Amino acid sequence: MGDVGSGGPLTVGMVGAGQLARMTAPAAIALGVRLRLLAASPEDAAALVVPDVVIGQPGDRDALTRFAAGTDAVTFDHELVDLELLEELASAGQAVRPSPGALLFAVDKRHQRSMLSTFGLPVPAWRPLDPATAAAEVNELAGEHGWPVVLKAARGGYDGRGVWAPEGPAAAGRVLAAAAERGTPMLAEARVPIERELAVLVARRPGGEAVVWPLVETVQRDGICVELLVPARVPPDVATAAETLGRAVADVVGAVGVLAVELFLDTDGKLLVNEVATRPHNSGHWTIEGSRTSQFANHLRAVLDLPLGPTGAVAPAVVTVNVLGGSDGRDPRARLAPALAEGVEVHLYGKSPRPGRKLGHVTARGDDLEETRARARRAAAALSG
Amino acid sequence: MGDVGSGGPLTVGMVGAGQLARMTAPAAIALGVRLRLLAASPEDAAALVVPDVVIGQPGDRDALTRFAAGTDAVTFDHELVDLELLEELASAGQAVRPSPGALLFAVDKRHQRSMLSTFGLPVPAWRPLDPATAAAEVNELAGEHGWPVVLKAARGGYDGRGVWAPEGPAAAGRVLAAAAERGTPMLAEARVPIERELAVLVARRPGGEAVVWPLVETVQRDGICVELLVPARVPPDVATAAETLGRAVADVVGAVGVLAVELFLDTDGKLLVNEVATRPHNSGHWTIEGSRTSQFANHLRAVLDLPLGPTGAVAPAVVTVNVLGGSDGRDPRARLAPALAEGVEVHLYGKSPRPGRKLGHVTARGDDLEETRARARRAAAALSG
Repeated sequence: MGDVGSGGPLTVGMVGAGQLARMTAPAAIALGVRLRLLAASPEDAAALVVPDVVIGQPGDRDALTRFAAGTDAVTFDHELVDLELLEELASAGQAVRPSPGALLFAVDKRHQRSMLSTFGLPVPAWRPLDPATAAAEVNELAGEHGWPVVLKAARGGYDGRGVWAPEGPAAAGRVLAAAAERGTPMLAEARVPIERELAVLVARRPGGEAVVWPLVETVQRDGICVELLVPARVPPDVATAAETLGRAVADVVGAVGVLAVELFLDTDGKLLVNEVATRPHNSGHWTIEGSRTSQFANHLRAVLDLPLGPTGAVAPAVVTVNVLGGSDGRDPRARLAPALAEGVEVHLYGKSPRPGRKLGHVTARGDDLEETRARARRAAAALSG
Repeated sequence: MGDVGSGGPLTVGMVGAGQLARMTAPAAIALGVRLRLLAASPEDAAALVVPDVVIGQPGDRDALTRFAAGTDAVTFDHELVDLELLEELASAGQAVRPSPGALLFAVDKRHQRSMLSTFGLPVPAWRPLDPATAAAEVNELAGEHGWPVVLKAARGGYDGRGVWAPEGPAAAGRVLAAAAERGTPMLAEARVPIERELAVLVARRPGGEAVVWPLVETVQRDGICVELLVPARVPPDVATAAETLGRAVADVVGAVGVLAVELFLDTDGKLLVNEVATRPHNSGHWTIEGSRTSQFANHLRAVLDLPLGPTGAVAPAVVTVNVLGGSDGRDPRARLAPALAEGVEVHLYGKSPRPGRKLGHVTARGDDLEETRARARRAAAALSG
């Protein structure tokens, strides 16, 4: 664990240099913590703004070892990691936070579903699929819950990739055959009739001390989260239940740092865990200006085992809207003026513009959720062009 | 002015790499603006956290030219600059913001006093000193306003340096003789009977659009600002008058970016301009978490001629307290835990610790000014050790 609390500067190593690492940099600057990145490329969003960058892949033992040397804690901006290498590092005395065991919840959806079910936490009806019996299992699930059934790759999916919703046995058969051919382990889930999508963010220290941010409502389009609304438009008892559920998941996972739990509120008013991320998460971007302590600041504190900051909202309404690349392919930095004129905070990730690519986000604070949302949407639209 | 608004990434060059540049970095990261520094040393507070650093002195034409090349605007984290070189740059078409003419207000206290007097803005009774007649001028001022008289070097003073308060003619003579020997131009001022010290921060765009932050009360010790209190403990009409005065000074200066006006409220309830800084300022550190838009974010927006953000406070009480190096010489990063446990925001500047050196600050937000102040003080004391 290095010399946390004992001496001089602290160093946190972050595997990955995307926008999450980029937004971690300001929190590290404030705290006087040195941030080191393991980046795939010097053009990665965070590598552009952080001086201490090791170029390499997280699955490359040499690069990972060189990167980790001298850090007080190794943490992550994504889950595309080699858990065995991380176990080696941890065994050699390196603080890896979250631990490889906790990361497995985000890496392997079958493990996650299985563990959450074991601990009695609510997930959609599901079953792991054995290639030999998959078709029968899927048909059985459909018999109980109807079509479409949701089929998921156990590993490697994100932002809607690795998820299919076949409408019948023939379509399911095609997905399963392709998966079997690639050797992809799969699971099947009942499709949930969704009333709202929500996310609860927790920051947790190694000893279990945890803080929870106010529940956020996430608005998805094509499997990608495009808007965050705080407060979520749900009854107070649902918000309370979601926070309790978030803490429980964090405990089961043994999370250290930020944990994001994506939730479905179904049409019967029941909460179900959709996904778990063991790192800062796009559903927490509203916290940068919208809460007393950002997810990035508390993530750093948690992985350094420092006291966590308060998580309350600083305004009655906070809305975050993604900035996607416009069809003209122009850089949104050429369109800052009309966005800033809306009185919002703008975050651009330094990525080269491409139509439809997530290039940044804006956060608006206000007194009224709908006014605030309209303002955030106008600003994001101005940047997207 | 480069290609602001026309195309790709924006670059702002900042002369100086101290804590003000360091705290500008997060604002640049958010906005997708590339920040380039002209640093005296790679160990400077900001050079530790920004990848694009030119090492050199602001008075070195080659270094300055190399640094400025390709930037959309050149701006400053201090005033120890060569105004002639900056005039050359500006004449060659480089956007220099604030302009050399505006910088002169911060560089030369005689120019500042003279201009403010010309425009009828309130300053303490003062006179420029000619070495040949200085003693007589000082005695005359003392005859009108009493001893001590305040003697100031016209250039180069800060944090109490370059300021003397002789109690009588003999002491004044010694200060004046030493100044004459060094060839330092001087001015004399009546000492103001101070009720409160205040500061008003303005951000101003090239076209004159300006925003003003809520008035801050500054608490000084040994000529150094050690605490910031928002709201300032003054009647509402004083706060309004101070804001109006701040805007007027910004207009007279022709400021672009942040301008800080340090004010005295005298025992007769009159506001007087003490100092003017044409850059982000330590009296504005509370804005990072305490206001809707930080001074650093609005400074960047202003020098890029982008719309300014709202400046309202996000909590009823905001208090910032400096962190000074403890007598044991330990790094405050070894003492983060007890400070963070107070529920405050911590900013450490990455400087090597030395007893009494300004190493960072903490900001507390709360509902009650005295409770918030007590909490900020406890946190700062914990870091100082």
